[in-house]
Amino acid sequence: MDFTLTDEQELIVTGVRGLMESENWDAYFEECDARHEYPERWVKALADLGIDSLMLDEEHGGFGEGLTTLLAVWEELGRLGGPTYVLYQLPGFDQIIENGTPEQVEKIMALRGTGKQMWNAAITEPSAGSDVGSLKTTYTRRDGKIYLNGHKTFITSSLGSPYLVIMARDADNYDVFTEFFVDMSLPGIKVEALDKLGLRMDSCADVYLDNVELTEADIFGTEGNGFQRVVRSFDVERFLVAATNYATALCALEDAAKYANQREQFGEKIFRFQLIQEKFCSMWIEVENMRNMLYRTAWLYDTGQMGNGEAAMCKYYCANAAFRVVDQALQVLGGVGIAGGHRVGRFWRDLRVDRISGGSDEMQILTAGRSILKRYR
Amino acid sequence: MDFTLTDEQELIVTGVRGLMESENWDAYFEECDARHEYPERWVKALADLGIDSLMLDEEHGGFGEGLTTLLAVWEELGRLGGPTYVLYQLPGFDQIIENGTPEQVEKIMALRGTGKQMWNAAITEPSAGSDVGSLKTTYTRRDGKIYLNGHKTFITSSLGSPYLVIMARDADNYDVFTEFFVDMSLPGIKVEALDKLGLRMDSCADVYLDNVELTEADIFGTEGNGFQRVVRSFDVERFLVAATNYATALCALEDAAKYANQREQFGEKIFRFQLIQEKFCSMWIEVENMRNMLYRTAWLYDTGQMGNGEAAMCKYYCANAAFRVVDQALQVLGGVGIAGGHRVGRFWRDLRVDRISGGSDEMQILTAGRSILKRYR
Amino acid sequence: MDFTLTDEQELIVTGVRGLMESENWDAYFEECDARHEYPERWVKALADLGIDSLMLDEEHGGFGEGLTTLLAVWEELGRLGGPTYVLYQLPGFDQIIENGTPEQVEKIMALRGTGKQMWNAAITEPSAGSDVGSLKTTYTRRDGKIYLNGHKTFITSSLGSPYLVIMARDADNYDVFTEFFVDMSLPGIKVEALDKLGLRMDSCADVYLDNVELTEADIFGTEGNGFQRVVRSFDVERFLVAATNYATALCALEDAAKYANQREQFGEKIFRFQLIQEKFCSMWIEVENMRNMLYRTAWLYDTGQMGNGEAAMCKYYCANAAFRVVDQALQVLGGVGIAGGHRVGRFWRDLRVDRISGGSDEMQILTAGRSILKRYR
Amino acid sequence: MDFTLTDEQELIVTGVRGLMESENWDAYFEECDARHEYPERWVKALADLGIDSLMLDEEHGGFGEGLTTLLAVWEELGRLGGPTYVLYQLPGFDQIIENGTPEQVEKIMALRGTGKQMWNAAITEPSAGSDVGSLKTTYTRRDGKIYLNGHKTFITSSLGSPYLVIMARDADNYDVFTEFFVDMSLPGIKVEALDKLGLRMDSCADVYLDNVELTEADIFGTEGNGFQRVVRSFDVERFLVAATNYATALCALEDAAKYANQREQFGEKIFRFQLIQEKFCSMWIEVENMRNMLYRTAWLYDTGQMGNGEAAMCKYYCANAAFRVVDQALQVLGGVGIAGGHRVGRFWRDLRVDRISGGSDEMQILTAGRSILKRYR
Repeated sequence: MDFTLTDEQELIVTGVRGLMESENWDAYFEECDARHEYPERWVKALADLGIDSLMLDEEHGGFGEGLTTLLAVWEELGRLGGPTYVLYQLPGFDQIIENGTPEQVEKIMALRGTGKQMWNAAITEPSAGSDVGSLKTTYTRRDGKIYLNGHKTFITSSLGSPYLVIMARDADNYDVFTEFFVDMSLPGIKVEALDKLGLRMDSCADVYLDNVELTEADIFGTEGNGFQRVVRSFDVERFLVAATNYATALCALEDAAKYANQREQFGEKIFRFQLIQEKFCSMWIEVENMRNMLYRTAWLYDTGQMGNGEAAMCKYYCANAAFRVVDQALQVLGGVGIAGGHRVGRFWRDLRVDRISGGSDEMQILTAGRSILKRYR
Repeated sequence: MDFTLTDEQELIVTGVRGLMESENWDAYFEECDARHEYPERWVKALADLGIDSLMLDEEHGGFGEGLTTLLAVWEELGRLGGPTYVLYQLPGFDQIIENGTPEQVEKIMALRGTGKQMWNAAITEPSAGSDVGSLKTTYTRRDGKIYLNGHKTFITSSLGSPYLVIMARDADNYDVFTEFFVDMSLPGIKVEALDKLGLRMDSCADVYLDNVELTEADIFGTEGNGFQRVVRSFDVERFLVAATNYATALCALEDAAKYANQREQFGEKIFRFQLIQEKFCSMWIEVENMRNMLYRTAWLYDTGQMGNGEAAMCKYYCANAAFRVVDQALQVLGGVGIAGGHRVGRFWRDLRVDRISGGSDEMQILTAGRSILKRYR
Repeated sequence: MDFTLTDEQELIVTGVRGLMESENWDAYFEECDARHEYPERWVKALADLGIDSLMLDEEHGGFGEGLTTLLAVWEELGRLGGPTYVLYQLPGFDQIIENGTPEQVEKIMALRGTGKQMWNAAITEPSAGSDVGSLKTTYTRRDGKIYLNGHKTFITSSLGSPYLVIMARDADNYDVFTEFFVDMSLPGIKVEALDKLGLRMDSCADVYLDNVELTEADIFGTEGNGFQRVVRSFDVERFLVAATNYATALCALEDAAKYANQREQFGEKIFRFQLIQEKFCSMWIEVENMRNMLYRTAWLYDTGQMGNGEAAMCKYYCANAAFRVVDQALQVLGGVGIAGGHRVGRFWRDLRVDRISGGSDEMQILTAGRSILKRYR
Repeated sequence: MDFTLTDEQELIVTGVRGLMESENWDAYFEECDARHEYPERWVKALADLGIDSLMLDEEHGGFGEGLTTLLAVWEELGRLGGPTYVLYQLPGFDQIIENGTPEQVEKIMALRGTGKQMWNAAITEPSAGSDVGSLKTTYTRRDGKIYLNGHKTFITSSLGSPYLVIMARDADNYDVFTEFFVDMSLPGIKVEALDKLGLRMDSCADVYLDNVELTEADIFGTEGNGFQRVVRSFDVERFLVAATNYATALCALEDAAKYANQREQFGEKIFRFQLIQEKFCSMWIEVENMRNMLYRTAWLYDTGQMGNGEAAMCKYYCANAAFRVVDQALQVLGGVGIAGGHRVGRFWRDLRVDRISGGSDEMQILTAGRSILKRYR
C-alpha cells in the first residue's frame, strides 16, 4: 500500500495551487454565480496550464494522465474554492474521440484551450428522469434529412455550449435510441433558462426541438447505440460529481476551522467548545472517507477495475457526505455563513443539486446495493 | 386528554383557509421572494380578518386568544404555502404594551391593521451573536440628550420597519444594558442590506449607528432592564419560529405526496416504490412529532407552564425536523424541486436560516439539555 | 386541547406507583431476566390492583377503560423499571371474548387475577415472517377429528402459556386460514426454547406440531377467518409494543440523568459537559415525541379513529426512538452500564428485539408510508 | 497510489484463511462466549502460524512486520468470524520490551507461542474512567518494600492473565504516577468477575489490591513515568480496537448478503426489495470507509506519521460504523439474528462495548476534533 502521489502529480498540483493563489478568484466566482455566468476566464487559465488536456491521450496532444491525477488536481482546485463542477467537460474528450466523426472531433478540438464551453449530452425529459428509457424525443427520416422533435429539460450547460449530443428514438421504431451531434445555432431550437437552486456558474435549461433539420452526418456514434453509450458514460460522470463534492467540502472544512480558531464568544475562542469540536471530528471523518474512497476508486479505474457499483457508491456517499460537511461548516460560521455573502453559503446551495442531477441518490443507492449483493450470490 | 380544537378555533381556521384559497397567493409569494419584498398585501388581508389582533388583549381591542389558537392559524396558513415567518410581529403587541411609553404604544398601534411592518428588536452585533452580553453598542448622555453609537448586524426587518428597539450599554457603566425605541428615519442611522440565504420576503441588514440623537423619552422599558426583557421575550420568539417551520414542512409534505401520487417512472406511479414510501413514513413521523410538540407547548404556555427548556426544544427540534422533511420532499420532487421554480425549493433555503437565527441550534441544545437535567437534581 | 389525565386516571397511576415503590422490584426483575423466568409475582401484584381488568368490559367484571388509561399505567410502570412487555396479554381479553367459544372464554377467564401467563397467538414460521401468507402449518380433518401439523417459530410465551391460538391452513384448500385454540399439554406438541437477545422474562420458542389431535370445538373464531382476525389484532399489538418501548426509554433517561448529576470526572460533575447536555437534549426530544404520539394515538383509538398507519408509525418510531434513548443513556452510564449489571444494559438488549418482533421495522415503514400517501390521492 | 498488499502479505493472509477454514471455529467461539472462556485453542493455532510474532522485532525472533500487515491479518480473521478482540496482546510485546526489566521481558516471552493470556494494563478505577488522572490507587514504600492499595475496575483479561501492569500514584507525592508489573498470584489481590454486555470470550473484573507487597524490581518502566507511557500506548490500542470492529462488520455484511440472496418472502428473494438493497448500500459504504481509513492510518503508523487524532478518529468512526453495519445485518437476518443463535447477534453485543471501553466515544470525538482544528491555527 502506498498513499503518496508521484512527483509528477505533485508538480501538477503545485501548478494549480499557484494559479489559485495568483489572484482573489473568489470575488470572480461570487460575481459569476450572482450573474449566472460561466467562469470562462478561470477555465481559460486552467487550459493555459494544460489542465484541459490532462486525460486526453498523447496521440491527440494530451498528457494521457489517469483519473488519479485528475482527482489530485480537482482536490486542490476545490480546496482553494474553485467551482470544479463547471469542468466536467474537460475529461470528456475521449467520449468525442471514441464516438464522433472526424468532423465532430475537429469541432470540439477547436475549442480546446479556449476556456469556452464545448458540449454536453442532453438526455433528460419531463417524463424521463431516472427512467431514461421513457424519453419521447424522436427523430424522423424524410427526404434524405433527419428531423428532431421533442423537449429536453434540466439540460446543464445548454445555454452556453455550442453543441449538444441529443438522444432521441426512431419515430418509426421506438426501440432504437440514437444520439445526434447538434449545433445549437440551428433553426428550430429554443432554449429557455431554468432557475436552479445552485451550481449557478453553469446554465440549466429547457431545450425545445421543433423539426430541427439534421443529416446522416450528424449521428453521434452508431445508430441504435445511444442508450449503451450514455449508460457507460455515467460511471465516469458520477465519479466526477463525487470528486467535485469532496473538494468543495474540503474547502468548507478549512474555512470553518480558520473561523473557529479566531472567533470569540463568551470570552473564549469557539474552537474550545465541545459542540464545536464535535462538528470538526464529524467533518474530518467525512472528508477522510471521501478522499480515501475517491482515490481508491480512481485507482480501480486506472487499473481497469471500476464497476458501476463503485461509481454509484462514490456519487451517493460524496454528494451526501459533502453536503453534511458544508452544512456543519455553515453552522460554525453562523450569521456570517447565512447572510454574510460567504462562499460556504454558495457551496451549500450547490451541493444540494447533486443529490438529484447526474443520477438521483435513489438510483445510486439501488445500483450500489445490488452491486454488493451480487458479489455474494 | 383531548386533541380537538374548539368550535371557535375551527371557525378562525376556516376563515384563513378561505383567504388562502381566494387567489393564487403562491405566485405573489414567489414574486416577493425574488424581489426581496415584504408581502404587504397578504399581511393586510390577514389583518382584515383580524389575525393581527388575535393575541392582543381585549382592552386594546384584540381577541385575547392564546398561543394554541395562534398555532392553529399558523398551521393552516403555512400548510397552504403562506410565509408565516414574516408575521412574527403580530403576536408582539404585548411586548410594546408592557414596556412602552404611551407615545411608543400609540405609534405601533397606529400601524395595526395596515399590513405594514412595525418594529423589531436589534440586538446582534458582529462580536455578539449567541453571546448577547458581548455587545459593544453604547449610549452616552450629553447635554440632556442621549447618543447611540455602534454596529448591529443580521437585523431582520430593519430595512422595512419604521421602528427598531435597539439594545445598548451605558458608555459610562458597561454593566447597564438599556433598550431604545428608535425611529429609523433619524439622522445618523445607515442600513445596508445583507444577502440572506433564505427568508427573503423579509429584509436582513447591517445597521450603523453614528451619534444617533435620542432623548430620555426614547428609552424602552426601564433603564438597565434591557437584558432581562429580551431574554424573557426569547421563549415566545423561539416558539413562533418553530411553529413557522412546522407549518412549512406540512406544506412540503403535502406537495410531495400529491406529486408522488401522479408522477410516473419505469411504468409505475412512483408512490409504489419502497424508497419513496420510506420517505413519506419518515416525513409523516416528523410532522406528527412537530405538531404534537407544538400544541402541547402552546397549551403549557396558555396555562402558564412553559419554561425556557420547552421553548428551546421546540425551536431546535422543529427547525431541524422541518428541514429534514423539506429536504426529503425536495428529493421526491427531483428536478422539478431543484430547477423548476417550485416553492419547496424556496422553503428549503428558508428553513436553513432558522437553525442559526433566533438563537442557534447549539444554544437551544444546551438550554434544553440543562433544563431536563435540572429536573433530576 | 387538553393534555391532562382525569382524576380517576391519576388515581390509578398513583396506585401503581405505590406498588412499584413498595419493594426493590429491580432485584427481582434482574433475577427473572437472568433465569429467563416470567415475573409472575409482579404480575400477580398488578392483578391484585385490578390492572389485568383495566380494559375488560364491565359486563365481564372489568373497568372498561380505554387505551389512554392503559397507556398512563404502562408509562408509570415502565418509568419505574417494570417490564411492561410481559403484560401484553392483559388488554387481550377482548380478542378472546369476541372470537372464543364460551368454553374457551371460561378457560382464559379462570386465569384472570392469578398473574399467570394465559395465551398467545402463534403465527410465525421459518418461511413465514413478515409474509404471514406463506405459512405451511396445516390442519386436516379425518374421522371427525382435526389434526394439526407444522412448525411455528419465534413464538413468544410459548413455554409458559397453557394455551396457544395457532394459525393453520386447510390441507385440502390452501386458501383457507383458520385458528385453533390449543391446550399446550396435548400430545404431539414439542416446544424448544430459543435464546433471544432480550426480553428474557418471557419465553421464545420453536413449537413443533406433530398430528396434534383437535376437535371442531377447538376452532377459534370462524373457520377461514384466521387471517382477517390476526391482521386486525396487529394494530393494538403494535401500539402496545410502542407503549412498552416508550416507558422503558423514560426509565433509562431518568437513570442517566440522576447519574450525570452526581458523577464526577475531571473535577466536574459530568452534567456540565456540553457533549452530555447534548445527549439529554436529544433524549428529551425523543421521549417527548413518543409520549405525545402515543397519547394522541390512544385518543384516536378511544374515539374510534386509529388506523393501521398510526399503529405502524407508533411501533416503528417508538421502537427506534426508544432504542436511541437507551443507547445514549448507556453511553452516559459508561462502564457502569456496560459491565456493572445496570438495568439500562438489560433494556438495551430488550429494545433491539422489538425492531423485528411484532412486525419488523420494514413492514411498519411501508404500512405507514402508504397510509400517509393515500390521504393525498 | 497503490492499494495492493505485497505478495508476502498476501501469503500470510492466505495462511490464516486456511486456518479459519480448517474447522468449524464458529461452534467453538459460540461455546467460549456462552461459557465466558478465552478461546485459547484458537489463539494457540494462530501462534503456531507465528501470528503472535508478527510485529515482534527480528532481534527477539519475530517477523518485524508493520501495522499494515497486522491489519490484513485481522481483516481476514474477523471476516471469517474470528474474535480478534482477544488478540490485543499480540502486538504488545514492544511495550514490554521497551519498558520492562530483563526479568519482566523473560516472563512474558515465556508465554509466547502458548496461546495463553499474557498481561494487560490496569488503569481504570471507579472514579477514574475517562479521567485517568483521578485514580486513587497508591503505592507506599515501607521497610524496603512497596505496598499497593486500591481498587481497579472494568479490567479486561484480569481473570485470565498471569500479570497485570498496574498504575498507582505515590502515596507520599500524588503527582507521581508509576506502573508495577504484578504477578496476579500474589497475596492481597482479589479479582471479582463483572458481567459484561459483550466481548465475553475475555474476562472483565474488579481488581482489589490490599497491601500487595512488591519490591523495587517490580516497577515497570521508570518511576514517575506511568502516565506518559499509557497515554502513548493508547494510540495503538485504539487503532487495534478499530481494526477489530471493522473486521467484525465485514463478517456481518457477508453473512447478511448470503442470507438476503437466498431468503424468500412474498414470493421473492428478499435481495430484490428496495429497502434491503438500501441497507446493503449503506453497509458497503461503511465497510469501505473503515477499510480505507484503517489501511491509510496503518500506513501513516508504519511511516512514522500517525498522530493521536488519527487513532482517535479510527476508534470513534469504526466502533460506530461497525455497530451500524452489524445492526443492519441483524435487521436483514430478522428472527434468525435475534433468536436463532446467529453469530451476528453476538457481534452486536460485542460492538456496543467498544464505544465505551478503550476510551469512550466522547474522548475520541474531542481528541479528533481538537487535532483537526489545530492544523488550521
